[in-house]
Amino acid sequence: KVDCRSSNKTIILPGLIDVHVHLREPGATHKEDWESGTASALAGGFTIVGAMPNTNPPIMNAETFELCSKLAAAKAHCDYGIYVGATFTNTQTAASLANESMAMKMYLEETFAPLPLKDDINAWRDHVMNWPGTTPICVHADGRNLAAVMMLGWMYNKHIHVCHVSHKEEIDLIRDAKLRGMKISCEVSPHHLVLTTEDIPRIGEGQSEVRPRLGTPEDRQALWDNIDYIDMIATDHAPHTYEEKCSAKPPPGFPGLETSLPLMLNAVHQGRLTLQQLKEKMHDNPIKLFSLPEQPDTYIEVDMDEEYAIGKPEYSRCGWTPFEGVKVRGRVVRVVLRGKLAYLDGKVLAPAGYGKNVRDMLPLKPVAAQVA
Amino acid sequence: KVDCRSSNKTIILPGLIDVHVHLREPGATHKEDWESGTASALAGGFTIVGAMPNTNPPIMNAETFELCSKLAAAKAHCDYGIYVGATFTNTQTAASLANESMAMKMYLEETFAPLPLKDDINAWRDHVMNWPGTTPICVHADGRNLAAVMMLGWMYNKHIHVCHVSHKEEIDLIRDAKLRGMKISCEVSPHHLVLTTEDIPRIGEGQSEVRPRLGTPEDRQALWDNIDYIDMIATDHAPHTYEEKCSAKPPPGFPGLETSLPLMLNAVHQGRLTLQQLKEKMHDNPIKLFSLPEQPDTYIEVDMDEEYAIGKPEYSRCGWTPFEGVKVRGRVVRVVLRGKLAYLDGKVLAPAGYGKNVRDMLPLKPVAAQVA
Ligand SMILES: [Zn+2]
Ligand SMILES: [Zn+2]
Ligand SMILES: [Zn+2]
Ligand SMILES: [Zn+2]
Ligand SMILES: [Zn+2]
Ligand SMILES: [Zn+2]
Ligand SMILES: [Zn+2]
Ligand SMILES: [Zn+2]
Repeated sequence: KVDCRSSNKTIILPGLIDVHVHLREPGATHKEDWESGTASALAGGFTIVGAMPNTNPPIMNAETFELCSKLAAAKAHCDYGIYVGATFTNTQTAASLANESMAMKMYLEETFAPLPLKDDINAWRDHVMNWPGTTPICVHADGRNLAAVMMLGWMYNKHIHVCHVSHKEEIDLIRDAKLRGMKISCEVSPHHLVLTTEDIPRIGEGQSEVRPRLGTPEDRQALWDNIDYIDMIATDHAPHTYEEKCSAKPPPGFPGLETSLPLMLNAVHQGRLTLQQLKEKMHDNPIKLFSLPEQPDTYIEVDMDEEYAIGKPEYSRCGWTPFEGVKVRGRVVRVVLRGKLAYLDGKVLAPAGYGKNVRDMLPLKPVAAQVA
Repeated sequence: KVDCRSSNKTIILPGLIDVHVHLREPGATHKEDWESGTASALAGGFTIVGAMPNTNPPIMNAETFELCSKLAAAKAHCDYGIYVGATFTNTQTAASLANESMAMKMYLEETFAPLPLKDDINAWRDHVMNWPGTTPICVHADGRNLAAVMMLGWMYNKHIHVCHVSHKEEIDLIRDAKLRGMKISCEVSPHHLVLTTEDIPRIGEGQSEVRPRLGTPEDRQALWDNIDYIDMIATDHAPHTYEEKCSAKPPPGFPGLETSLPLMLNAVHQGRLTLQQLKEKMHDNPIKLFSLPEQPDTYIEVDMDEEYAIGKPEYSRCGWTPFEGVKVRGRVVRVVLRGKLAYLDGKVLAPAGYGKNVRDMLPLKPVAAQVA
C-alpha cells in the first residue's frame, strides 16, 4: 500500500482513479478512442478510469457491453471499468450486468447522450428497485430531478452517486441529505471548481458549452464551501474536437484527464485543498464507494513545484482544452502501474492492451454498509 | 363524541370534513362563493371544509388572507379553514401564516392556479424548510415532482400531504415511502375512485377536463388496491359553470361536495369500502392529520338505503356534475352543527355567517408525532 510521502520537491501518490470519463469508442473515435483516452489518463496520473456508456451504440445490454469490453481489452493502456446505461426498456437487463460493470449511469437530463430517461418516474423507479446494492447508481440530474432520484434511493435503500455536482442548489441538497443520514455520494469536476460563467469570454461561447453548465462565482464558492461533503473529484473527460466546439451547434463537454491533477495540485498550493483531501477524493473514496481493487505496486510520482502554463493535450485526440494558458504548479513525472513503468516524463510506456478490467481483478462486495 | 350506530335504515356519522375545496371567492363568484359553496358542503354532509388559495387574488400574504377571512366569516354556513398558497417570493410570509391557516398549499404542476412554483427547487426547499411543523404541506404534484418534494419533506422532517392522488405511479411512491417509515399522508378524490378515461365519452371531452386527469382503469384499480394507504377522501370540489366546461378552453375541475358521500356510501354498499373506513377517511384522519377541532354536538344522519340517480347540484352555483344520472344508494338527511340543525331534507338551515374558522376554535398543536 502506497501512502503520500515527500522527498525534496517530489511526492508519491497512489495511482489516481477517475470514475467519470467519456472515451467515445465505439462510435466517435475521431474525438477519442480507448487508446488515446487511456494514454491521456496515464499522462494525467490516473491508473483506473470508469468509461461512461453514452457511446454509439450506447452500452445498455449484454451485446454492447461485450463489444465495448473487447475494444477496451485490446486497446487500454490503463485499468478501467465500463458503465452500463439505463434506458426506458432495460430495467432488467441493466441490473443483470451489475457485477461486470463499473456501475449504472442514469441520464435524467437532456445532454450529449443517446440514453435519456426524461421524466418517466416509473422507469427511474424500476431501475433503482432492480439495481443490486454492489455498486452505486450514478445520476446526471439537476435540481428537482436530483431530489426525485434521491427519494427513490432512500426509499429502496440504494446508493445514489451524484455525478459532476456543479451548482449551489445541488450541493445544498446533497449536504443536507448527508446531514440527515442518507446514503449518498457525489463527485465534482475540476472545471466546476475552477471555471465560472465569467470565464466564458476567454474560452469562447461554443467552447464553453458543458453539461451541467458552468456555474456562477456563487455556485463555485458553494462547492468549495462544501468540499468536505464532496466525496470525489472526477474529470467528466468529455472530448470533442476543437472544430466541433467552434461549430454552429457546439457539443457540450471538456477534456479533463491531463489537466485534473495539475489543477488540483494548484489548489493545494493555493491552500484550498490539502494533499490528504486530494488523495481521498482522487483515490481512497473512489476505491471505497465503487468497490474497486487496490492495484498492487502502483503509484505516481509528482513534481510539486514545477510551474508552467497548461498547453494543448499531449494524448487526448480532441486537441484542445479550456484551460490552455492557465498557470499551474505541479506535474506528473512517473506512473507505475502493477509493477510496470507506465509513464515517464511525457511518454506513455505501457502498451495498448496492458490495461485490465477492474471487475476481473476483484470480485464485487456490497458497498451498502461502507457509504458514509 | 358521536360514533357510527345504526337505527333501522338510518345511521349517524360525525360531521364530515373535506380538506380540499375551491370556493372561488374572491374573484370568480359566478362559479361559486362562500355562501353557495358552504351550503353545498352541508348538503353533502360536511361540517368543515378547507378552502384552497388559488382565488383571485390568490391567498398568499396577510392582506389577502385577511380579505378572505372576512368574506368567510360573513358568509360561511359551515365551519372552515383557509389555506395559504406558496409562491416564488413568499417563503417567509407563508410560514408566518401557519397558525391561522388550514395548511400550506404548493402547486408544483401547471393547473388552474395563479400560484405556480414550476421547477424552482430552491423555492420548494425554502418553503419546506420554513414551514412550521404544526400542519401539513399540501402538494399538487405528479410523478417526479412528487418524488422531489417528498425528498424535501423527509430531509427537513416536515409532513407532506399529497393532494388528490390519482395514478398508479403516485400511489406506488406514497405506499413505498410509508412502508419505509416516512411521515407522509395523502387524499383521494371520489372522481378518481369512480371515473376513468372510459367515462370521457359519456361526460364529454371538455367536461372531463380535471387535474390530475382521469386515470386509466388500471390507475383506478391501483387506488382501490392501496386504499389502506390513503388517509383521506377529499372532494377537490372545483366548480366551473357548465357553459365554461363546454367552451373552447374548458377549465379543469369538477364539483364534488354534494356527490362525495353518496358515491362513497355506494362504494360501501358495493363492498369496496367499509363504513369504518369511510368514517376514518372523511372524519378521523382529517382531524388528526390537520390538527382540527372536534366540533361539539355535531353529527349527520344518513339514510343508507334510498336509491336514486344523481341530479344537478342543489346548492353549488356551477349547476352541473359529471355524475349526473349515476345511480347511488344512500343520502344525507340531517346535519347538526354545534348543536344547531343546519340541514334537513334538502334545506340548508344554518344561516350565512354561522360557520367558524377552525383555527379560532382550537389552538394548534404540532402534528409531527401523530403522523403514521
Ligand atoms: Zn453528465
Ligand atoms: Zn443545477
Ligand atoms: Zn459525463
Ligand atoms: Zn490505494
Ligand atoms: Zn390540485
Ligand atoms: Zn400521475
Ligand atoms: Zn384542488
Ligand atoms: Zn369526531
